Amino acid sequence: MLLLHLSDVNEASWARQFAEALAPYPVVRRGDDFDPSRVRYIFAWKPKADAFEGLDGLEAILSLGAGVDALLKHPHLPAQPIVRFVDADLSQRMSDYVVAHVTMHHRNFSRFQADQQARRWQQYYPPAASQTTVGIMGMGVLGQDAVQRLKPLGFELRSWSRTTKSIEGVTGFAGPEQFDDFLAGTDILVNLLPLTPQTSGILNAQTFGKLRRGRLAGGPVIINAARGGHQREADIVTALADGTLGAASLDVFEVEPLPQDSPLWAIQNCYITPHIAAISNEAAGVRYFSAIIRDHEAGKPLINVVDRARGY
Amino acid sequence: MLLLHLSDVNEASWARQFAEALAPYPVVRRGDDFDPSRVRYIFAWKPKADAFEGLDGLEAILSLGAGVDALLKHPHLPAQPIVRFVDADLSQRMSDYVVAHVTMHHRNFSRFQADQQARRWQQYYPPAASQTTVGIMGMGVLGQDAVQRLKPLGFELRSWSRTTKSIEGVTGFAGPEQFDDFLAGTDILVNLLPLTPQTSGILNAQTFGKLRRGRLAGGPVIINAARGGHQREADIVTALADGTLGAASLDVFEVEPLPQDSPLWAIQNCYITPHIAAISNEAAGVRYFSAIIRDHEAGKPLINVVDRARGY
Repeated sequence: MLLLHLSDVNEASWARQFAEALAPYPVVRRGDDFDPSRVRYIFAWKPKADAFEGLDGLEAILSLGAGVDALLKHPHLPAQPIVRFVDADLSQRMSDYVVAHVTMHHRNFSRFQADQQARRWQQYYPPAASQTTVGIMGMGVLGQDAVQRLKPLGFELRSWSRTTKSIEGVTGFAGPEQFDDFLAGTDILVNLLPLTPQTSGILNAQTFGKLRRGRLAGGPVIINAARGGHQREADIVTALADGTLGAASLDVFEVEPLPQDSPLWAIQNCYITPHIAAISNEAAGVRYFSAIIRDHEAGKPLINVVDRARGY
Repeated sequence: MLLLHLSDVNEASWARQFAEALAPYPVVRRGDDFDPSRVRYIFAWKPKADAFEGLDGLEAILSLGAGVDALLKHPHLPAQPIVRFVDADLSQRMSDYVVAHVTMHHRNFSRFQADQQARRWQQYYPPAASQTTVGIMGMGVLGQDAVQRLKPLGFELRSWSRTTKSIEGVTGFAGPEQFDDFLAGTDILVNLLPLTPQTSGILNAQTFGKLRRGRLAGGPVIINAARGGHQREADIVTALADGTLGAASLDVFEVEPLPQDSPLWAIQNCYITPHIAAISNEAAGVRYFSAIIRDHEAGKPLINVVDRARGY
């Protein structure tokens, strides 16, 4: 039996689609009349405190989110394996966002928009893509997809991750000891890291001060499409004001929705989107997790299982 | 002898570099003391009315600009072949501009910026790149380069040109009779055409009204990185006001610099840049034309010669 436990999304719609895809395998929702000890899989998003109560026959926890940082903090999380959602459609959408914001900043959008507001015709030629380095933090599925999209655009690429990744055309850096070197050659910093105790707050004043200066007219740029917990928003406000950063694109925030009184809203060279960089696609999710359940029922091992020590 | 005749750019710098690259071949500038009948090549940008006077031994006219529409209108243009500048660096920079503006509009930048100004947190998921069609007018060197950069981003691509071009992954349309079909499936229209009597004013109200509606939240988008003469600015103002167009990115204008009193400056979803999408790189230009002069002096034929009947 599959139990759906999804907050803030259309659970009924997911349930209908799973029921269709898995039939005759039973699919239930919270509030339905069922015996919790018969639940073998729970498909969860923002599970309540009592989400796992009585699930004595649980085989696996299926996570709607690609990031499992919030799930791992659940006070009663069972020890069963957690399967992450790895979604080509989600990766494509995340890369859409990353490419749009990287190219916009590379072309000095903030400067030209300020000139337009002042009705100022002032020619300035941005550097070529080949003279601009994009540094990507996180080389999982999302980071690797972004690299494949950015490479044909001619940017210099470098990556930073927990362990060294060898990807053609990308200069790889790894671990805390290579972090400063990574930053020292980066003009546009893209964050696609998982949120773990090691990466929490990594987008802070110290980090910003180590980025390369002099290539992009307004100063180096950060793009955060991962988690609000990665960034210190007070530091971003200061860095945008004093020129340490030329611009910031933020899709995620310490508190979401971003509070009405956040100073970020009013900063011209801070580009805010309401956590929409990538969404888990319903059809893709049903396809992905239905296959995982069917395979596991047929005796095959689970794939994309979260390493809890690592945090993702 | 090579004569430089460049207005509005650093002629002295070009002259130094050409002298170095071609030595001992003589390189002169306007105002220098030389016999005009010994000039075999003139390297021109915005030539004055008397630019070609006395050049009785002229072999070729070398054009700094990739577009030769203005040069072809010169009242005393000699009949000698005109060599266009075909520059990989310029193509790359033009594609940088095209990709930045295509991806920005695909990700509904205008909508999110309006929401930010209103401190409004309103989630909206842009369509996937694969559900968005970019239609490129002009499939010369620039159009083909843009296609190669946009393809890995996952967009649907179509092209429109004078004669049918067969490019993998691009649906090709050609000639006036296929123009409406081309527009009917286009969400983001990119203009990279040469300016000729046939393409003058092609970005007008009629064209805008034929673009596809319903994919991009704000309506279809135009991007003009070619020539101001391609666009009817009064029509753009109207189309942005009444929603026929969702946004416009304009790098070129009917009159440049764009006059202070142009209504375009103040339109939020009109993105103005001061004719900086692509620039002819000095080092690349010297390399390119020095090779052309040397080859021609050695008896080889000229390359990239303008077809005057065609207009480019």
